[in-house]
Amino acid sequence: MKTITIENAIVLPKGFRAAGVHAGIKKSGDPDMTMIVSELPDTAAAGTFTTNQVKAAPVKVCLKRIRSGKGRGVVINSGNANACTGKGGEADAEAMARAAARAAGVPVSSMYVCSTGHIGARLPMDKILAGIETLGAALSPDGAMNAVRGIMTTDNGPKFGTVRLKIDGKPVTLSVMCKGAGMIEPNMATMLCFVMTDAAVDRKALAAALKAAVKESFNRISVDGDMSTNDTVLLFANGAAGNKPLKPGHPDWKKFDAALLALCQRMAWMIIRDGEGAKKVIKVEVVGARSGKDAELAARSVANSLLVKTSWHNDYPNFGRIMDALGYSPAKIVENKVDMAYDGKLLVKGGLRTGIDVEAIKAVQRQELFTIRINLNLGKGASHVFSCDCAHAYIDINI
Amino acid sequence: MKTITIENAIVLPKGFRAAGVHAGIKKSGDPDMTMIVSELPDTAAAGTFTTNQVKAAPVKVCLKRIRSGKGRGVVINSGNANACTGKGGEADAEAMARAAARAAGVPVSSMYVCSTGHIGARLPMDKILAGIETLGAALSPDGAMNAVRGIMTTDNGPKFGTVRLKIDGKPVTLSVMCKGAGMIEPNMATMLCFVMTDAAVDRKALAAALKAAVKESFNRISVDGDMSTNDTVLLFANGAAGNKPLKPGHPDWKKFDAALLALCQRMAWMIIRDGEGAKKVIKVEVVGARSGKDAELAARSVANSLLVKTSWHNDYPNFGRIMDALGYSPAKIVENKVDMAYDGKLLVKGGLRTGIDVEAIKAVQRQELFTIRINLNLGKGASHVFSCDCAHAYIDINI
Repeated sequence: MKTITIENAIVLPKGFRAAGVHAGIKKSGDPDMTMIVSELPDTAAAGTFTTNQVKAAPVKVCLKRIRSGKGRGVVINSGNANACTGKGGEADAEAMARAAARAAGVPVSSMYVCSTGHIGARLPMDKILAGIETLGAALSPDGAMNAVRGIMTTDNGPKFGTVRLKIDGKPVTLSVMCKGAGMIEPNMATMLCFVMTDAAVDRKALAAALKAAVKESFNRISVDGDMSTNDTVLLFANGAAGNKPLKPGHPDWKKFDAALLALCQRMAWMIIRDGEGAKKVIKVEVVGARSGKDAELAARSVANSLLVKTSWHNDYPNFGRIMDALGYSPAKIVENKVDMAYDGKLLVKGGLRTGIDVEAIKAVQRQELFTIRINLNLGKGASHVFSCDCAHAYIDINI
Repeated sequence: MKTITIENAIVLPKGFRAAGVHAGIKKSGDPDMTMIVSELPDTAAAGTFTTNQVKAAPVKVCLKRIRSGKGRGVVINSGNANACTGKGGEADAEAMARAAARAAGVPVSSMYVCSTGHIGARLPMDKILAGIETLGAALSPDGAMNAVRGIMTTDNGPKFGTVRLKIDGKPVTLSVMCKGAGMIEPNMATMLCFVMTDAAVDRKALAAALKAAVKESFNRISVDGDMSTNDTVLLFANGAAGNKPLKPGHPDWKKFDAALLALCQRMAWMIIRDGEGAKKVIKVEVVGARSGKDAELAARSVANSLLVKTSWHNDYPNFGRIMDALGYSPAKIVENKVDMAYDGKLLVKGGLRTGIDVEAIKAVQRQELFTIRINLNLGKGASHVFSCDCAHAYIDINI
């Protein structure tokens, strides 16, 4: 298979329009509302959502709609999460959907809703509803960049990407926009991600492909171990490209599937790279675990340890803290079997420091990206998680 | 039962001697070795140790000895944890015990060993063995304060306390010294704690009482969610007071048991109060959980959330982050049943903010100690954990 080229641009696929505006929710004056709409009535939709037991009102609204496997668009506000807002908050989210559907000229049942920002306050519905009117009027095939800006919160920059493919010989576009920097943990992060494609895709295949892609992208990053109430990934496929519906068995299915995964991984990468206050990305790879589950538990224990993350901020390889985090993970660990390599340089063998020059490891840890590969030497289970260092700036952002 | 008075002093019980010296392990010149010895051959000993799968060499040595229920003393070094040091490290720990036993004139099998400090480097055994010689010569009934200083690492101050009781009408002393500030998590912390008493206590009763006391003290605090490789609590009871051996059924058993618990709780309190960089102690109390286990899981999820801890550094009550942490805990949570009160002031009722003036809650959160009581309203399970805020200083200490 050819390497997938992700363009550092956001081009809406055929039949999509988008807009982003400042509705007055953020005091900064930055864009704080976004709408994305597909013009085609028969647009398939798939979604994955936070597994937090405390779900924001818009997530509850999305969960009701996603069972249909269909959807025409989504309206998003940033600056307020509409979480922990009870029945009133749910009514607000439904009112957002109603107003957005009317403004976009699509059925209410096909309009999704997302919110991101502070938890625990009701939405300023007057501003929201006025913003939706403006959004409806501003929808445009060229509105993607404004739309990206409207979903940002603590992000240092916009996160997006586009892949162009040929499916049945016809040009197909997949484009993605995403936000997220903090509150990033296993099983979805405080993140919103919207993928649009003009490919025609079978609904069931679309849902399965998205689930698999999310598992290998957003669910493999951890900024601070805090799983959000609002996490949402939505994927719309409107079929405007005119290909035969994609599903496993279609000769171009794997190409599409790989492009979707690549886009999700790029977005996950951009989130972790933008981890609040972080300067480095660390891939924690665990191999030789008793099982895949054990490998994941061990990797997450290391990736989420505050002491380990703090040590990454510096360049000294504090492998003892990693051993400690392995030891208290629920995964089976045998101390004198553990090997640990930094970008291939073996620092720990059989639980003990090797004779390697610490300066060689410091050089690895000074990089913006490096891999710590941990071999538990107990079996064949393997997994990995991307993490980042923890610095003062994390506290400054969240205080 | 009378209130237990804990003297803010450390007085060794009859028949104990102690010393603390600078052996040259710490570059600062601060005391870095301690020895405590009981003069009576028939001294009972009980201990609890880290549950981390990666155990430091001295913990392995202690685990071998503690089964006897007996012990005459302990030698401790700070500045180096002797963890992740393999068979060589275990041999070093045994050599420490041998040298200390000889210097104190007690059997090798009765000498315990503890280490605390950096992980992953071998002990400087020349300095350690020379230090043990000095300790042996310095052992004194008045050596407790020096001994306390010898076990400190990142502690801002020494941690100790003494309780005096009458057992069988005879004066009995319990005294304790303790160290610990960071790497504090459920099921033991990076902490060392030594309790000495001249009471005669049945060995089985001693072990059971210590286990229960640790559960309700050290296992209820969390500074950073990182469980150490070296955690140790040791309790020596030498019977010098001449009472009839204490055990359940003895008329003074409850008095002794309560004093032991009070001392452990005081030390746990001093550790959390000294949480690296922290300015506040927060009691996270969960009631109304489906079970006691659920209550504990929910309390720990809140107490360990980096986002929650960061928010406590400020005075604004970011209850949404607490709801979020409850939601991703393994405990059953129903959002619209959750009540939350700050020192009795109800901020959340049925999952929603009450109309209470935020200034009243801010005043609570500005205090150095406050309680957040969370009622899940799902059952009768209750538990609590003490946590602290997270500030820049934590990172400065651990970078």
